[in-house]
Amino acid sequence: MIRLRLDLGYDGTDFSGWASQPGLRTVQGELTAALTTITRSPEPVVITCAGRTDAGVHARGQVAHVDLPDELYAALPGRSDRTPEAALAKRLRSLLPSDVTVRSVTIAPEGFDARFSALSRRYRYVICDNPAYLDPLRVRETVVHPRALGEVLMGEASGRLTGLHDFAAFCRRREGASTVRSLLQYDWTRVGPGILEATVVADAFCHSMVRSLVGAVVPVGEGREPVDFPAEVLTARVRDPRVKVMPPHGLVLEEVTYPPDSELAARAAEARAYRSL
Amino acid sequence: MIRLRLDLGYDGTDFSGWASQPGLRTVQGELTAALTTITRSPEPVVITCAGRTDAGVHARGQVAHVDLPDELYAALPGRSDRTPEAALAKRLRSLLPSDVTVRSVTIAPEGFDARFSALSRRYRYVICDNPAYLDPLRVRETVVHPRALGEVLMGEASGRLTGLHDFAAFCRRREGASTVRSLLQYDWTRVGPGILEATVVADAFCHSMVRSLVGAVVPVGEGREPVDFPAEVLTARVRDPRVKVMPPHGLVLEEVTYPPDSELAARAAEARAYRSL
Repeated sequence: MIRLRLDLGYDGTDFSGWASQPGLRTVQGELTAALTTITRSPEPVVITCAGRTDAGVHARGQVAHVDLPDELYAALPGRSDRTPEAALAKRLRSLLPSDVTVRSVTIAPEGFDARFSALSRRYRYVICDNPAYLDPLRVRETVVHPRALGEVLMGEASGRLTGLHDFAAFCRRREGASTVRSLLQYDWTRVGPGILEATVVADAFCHSMVRSLVGAVVPVGEGREPVDFPAEVLTARVRDPRVKVMPPHGLVLEEVTYPPDSELAARAAEARAYRSL
Repeated sequence: MIRLRLDLGYDGTDFSGWASQPGLRTVQGELTAALTTITRSPEPVVITCAGRTDAGVHARGQVAHVDLPDELYAALPGRSDRTPEAALAKRLRSLLPSDVTVRSVTIAPEGFDARFSALSRRYRYVICDNPAYLDPLRVRETVVHPRALGEVLMGEASGRLTGLHDFAAFCRRREGASTVRSLLQYDWTRVGPGILEATVVADAFCHSMVRSLVGAVVPVGEGREPVDFPAEVLTARVRDPRVKVMPPHGLVLEEVTYPPDSELAARAAEARAYRSL
């Protein structure tokens, strides 16, 4: 068995999210179809990703893996001037629709798992708070907010959320799943007139967490809630009706980080032992 | 009669260009419908723009004007906290589809004409010459070229085209229309790995001129033609089959410049006299 790492991007506008769903257009569905065709796999190939993005969410730095039986890998259409992986990347680009891009296909290092090896995920969220400055070529990735926002207050409020916490107040509840996460970075910058960007980095995110973290800070930027409002919601550990889950299209998965190749195998063994407890 | 200046943008992907055409979705068509509704004009309002972009071409800095009879202007839904123009901009934003953005609506200075007052138009053209670096959120505005391009050679070649010339070799022929233009700037930059951008500025452009200027320089970047190939085509003043008209979606109208308000009236009188010769 050969494990391949796929580095991918997509414009999420016309997808019902990452995860395959019968009858819906999904990124995983398109990739599975394309890879199954190219590898001539008798069964649909199984693709695992680092961040299962929701409907409408975009990605520039999605990472996935797929396992190919040796005989399918050996039969990949290689060409003298490229590796089988590079040839596969080229075939994928020609088969996939234009709203999915393939950065690269490589042989995954020993012990690599796109989901479980990931150390952190970095997301960006973009808000336009003055429609005069809405860029017509960024409409699909920008949420227009009808009132001016104070980015300094928002930066103060978001900074108070970083650290290892139970983010239950910002997660859609799922039976038995932990909501403890390490929020490594959360800040806001006005990158130009009318345009604010959040950078949000955590070891992992639970469902709708980034969009809730943004929704907690926006009322602070509007002056409707005090700077410590998001931190108080965090401490309460229950969802607060004043915290809206913001629209998906402002969100982009920018990057997933992994440990050095040399540490992957040891970490994988550790994770397996931990999960079997 | 009150003349209003409109500063606009659009994602050209889903438009059959700027100019109204029966049965087709155009930017002018959408704007005419919205403005006619808002102003309650008994006839469709007449909108004039600085750069009539082709199907698929985008704009961030389009400028247009429209004339409103005094009684319609006086009846515009103003609000105590905004001017009638600002209220009109707000109404336009809510009525127009999401792929058209309104930067501002202002009362045009005396003598202003969106088309004839313009001093220069600036366009950008974006090419990706390595699909590994294609940004999934820029696919609609980026032309993917299958081979690596040498941007230094392209910059040299494009620089030799600037100046006042007859650009007949780069224009779709139109009976009786002059093809003499002043090309003020034409350069190429690699803005990141795999991404090249051209900046093209002229007093005015004839039809398909920017896309032909790009098509003349691409074979130089590929090493298929020498650096002086585009200049030789220019001198020949006839269309050359080696010069392709590049695809529209890489092209964005970025900016239109105008003289200071104080010079507009005098220039308009001059232009009228010139056109009546």
